[in-house]
Amino acid sequence: MAYSMYHATVPVMVRALRNLRSVLQIGEKFANDKGIAPEVLLQSRLIADMLPLIKQVQIATDTSKFAVARLTATDPVSFTDDETTFEQLYARLDRCIEVLGAYKPEQFDGAESREVAFKTRTAELKFTGADYLGTYALPNLFFHATTAYAILRVAGAPLGKTDYLAGAGR
Amino acid sequence: MAYSMYHATVPVMVRALRNLRSVLQIGEKFANDKGIAPEVLLQSRLIADMLPLIKQVQIATDTSKFAVARLTATDPVSFTDDETTFEQLYARLDRCIEVLGAYKPEQFDGAESREVAFKTRTAELKFTGADYLGTYALPNLFFHATTAYAILRVAGAPLGKTDYLAGAGR
Repeated sequence: MAYSMYHATVPVMVRALRNLRSVLQIGEKFANDKGIAPEVLLQSRLIADMLPLIKQVQIATDTSKFAVARLTATDPVSFTDDETTFEQLYARLDRCIEVLGAYKPEQFDGAESREVAFKTRTAELKFTGADYLGTYALPNLFFHATTAYAILRVAGAPLGKTDYLAGAGR
Repeated sequence: MAYSMYHATVPVMVRALRNLRSVLQIGEKFANDKGIAPEVLLQSRLIADMLPLIKQVQIATDTSKFAVARLTATDPVSFTDDETTFEQLYARLDRCIEVLGAYKPEQFDGAESREVAFKTRTAELKFTGADYLGTYALPNLFFHATTAYAILRVAGAPLGKTDYLAGAGR
């Protein structure tokens, strides 16, 4: 099958979310081993005016769910955004991975030239589908996955870049 | 033109590198404004056993140059890896952007199924081209671009995520 927007989106995002789940599990085990309350890690930030770990995971999943929905003109899955535990974050990631995995390649036919327009907190954005994926959705997903990794890494969790790249296996 | 591995690689990486350059410029201006020696920022790390800013930029460009070379079976550009100043990092980024921009879409024909195999410090890796791009090269590029951003952000530079996503303009 020829390479398509489906291949550039679904397996890439599923893989990133699975690895993020794996990174979080290492963080949770680290908290347990050290007697750190899980909520302390989940509320940790790189600096006071950056978002905490829990929010990094929420945004990573939001970015992914909106990407597949916008690229295929389907409705995004809804999350309640009330997670407070590692278990709830795993459930959110699992649900997001399940939703992404249910998309079919043909739903992405023509997605590269589909107009994607939406508002963020600070701007109104308009892209072609290809630009949206490559210059917004993927960079944003990896930004939050990396920041989640960095928060745990700086907190002392025994993580290496391989956990981010391939923690859930190749 | 149909979406292809070229579109998933070259414009995405060029954009990420241009934004990284823009993020570095904000960091350099911050250092100048605060009277911080540039080398202090360039040697800053998120934590002692993570790599410093200068190395994050070197790896971001290495990842990009190897990606286009491996996906097209061409020789990678050579960098001397001896940068010590912001100016030298800009020159490295500019050279990498220029090299990437010189690739033609047809050089990526069939890249999705090309075998990509190489050794890292810790493993021997083998991928299809599509998997290499989506699960190694792009995640690694954004990992280092995000970590560079985070180092400067934590150091106090006036950065927001928009600088990472679109600092060089849309």
